[in-house]
Amino acid sequence: MRISELSRRTGVPVPTVKFYLREGLLPAGRATAATQAQYDEGHEQRLRLVRALVEVGGMSLAAVRQVLAVVDDPPSSAHELLGAAHDALPPAVPDDVDVTAAERVVAELGWRVAPHSAPLRQLAAALAALEALGMPAGPEVVLRYARALEPVAAAETAAVPTSSPEAAVAFVVMGTALYEPVVLALRRLAQQDASARRFGPDGADGA
Amino acid sequence: MRISELSRRTGVPVPTVKFYLREGLLPAGRATAATQAQYDEGHEQRLRLVRALVEVGGMSLAAVRQVLAVVDDPPSSAHELLGAAHDALPPAVPDDVDVTAAERVVAELGWRVAPHSAPLRQLAAALAALEALGMPAGPEVVLRYARALEPVAAAETAAVPTSSPEAAVAFVVMGTALYEPVVLALRRLAQQDASARRFGPDGADGA
Repeated sequence: MRISELSRRTGVPVPTVKFYLREGLLPAGRATAATQAQYDEGHEQRLRLVRALVEVGGMSLAAVRQVLAVVDDPPSSAHELLGAAHDALPPAVPDDVDVTAAERVVAELGWRVAPHSAPLRQLAAALAALEALGMPAGPEVVLRYARALEPVAAAETAAVPTSSPEAAVAFVVMGTALYEPVVLALRRLAQQDASARRFGPDGADGA
Repeated sequence: MRISELSRRTGVPVPTVKFYLREGLLPAGRATAATQAQYDEGHEQRLRLVRALVEVGGMSLAAVRQVLAVVDDPPSSAHELLGAAHDALPPAVPDDVDVTAAERVVAELGWRVAPHSAPLRQLAAALAALEALGMPAGPEVVLRYARALEPVAAAETAAVPTSSPEAAVAFVVMGTALYEPVVLALRRLAQQDASARRFGPDGADGA
């Protein structure tokens, strides 16, 4: 197909497609004339992945390149694909965060996680911020959140497609990024309901 | 106490304290000389709250004013304090989002939530984004997240102090804002563990 058709099918504007081609995020098409090239379904799939990484995942071009390198030279297990996708997703957390407290929690949970991965540093930074403000950040609090999220993560992981590395990475990135606002909104709504039960007109501590 | 002592106790720099005074976020002290004033514990508590709202909650000055108005003229129930805190917290979601799908979910859960509150619009916007990208956003998916978060929200709400409106609002804002990164990091770590179980060397679909 021509670049215009590739653009039409994926909803990515032609100038953006050309930008991705120049940046090497999309491989060149098969040249059919001096200024024309043909693209195939492989290009279409790759373009959808790049768009998901940039627009939904909020990734920088450098992070996209990092993920694509993993997709192009996939590790022996789908599991390592997940780690690479997670490491590239925002928020970026400094490399030198002390992860001791986070590692202790993960060990207590019996979870198998990568040793110094981005989510572990993200957890460590969040716990440090809580402690600095005198908010509860002990194992009992963290374990309560963790146990609640276990069945959710199991269901999410069961849904990961294994048809191709592209499909798996696209699903993980879109799933991680797109369901986060759902989780956060539902937590607040659940708090409203719990608050109505505790403080509402017929609640335990109600008016 | 003098303004310098107020600054020392709260960790808020003197110029910032003066800025809050000028903006009316902190009531004036009792004047003891032309250029001096005395502050009391009420000022200290209010200053801690303002700092939490701005630095932890990421609130605009307008949103801080909105929350303080509720604290100063508290509704008859602690439950409405929660609603006011939630409505002021980011992310800001447009008022005209169609909340029909989100309301259906909440009704199915039997949750008591405010009719057009910010978290309900936040959920509606997130579900619309999922649908636009062809990701699962049906009730069965949303209910799975919601059921997982119910016990978490119940425990969080049980911990809300009722000693004063200031204390309750500060706890809700800090709790809502500060535990969100904990929840998100733990979800990713739980995914890593679930992935190790499914795709790892001795997992169900392992190499």
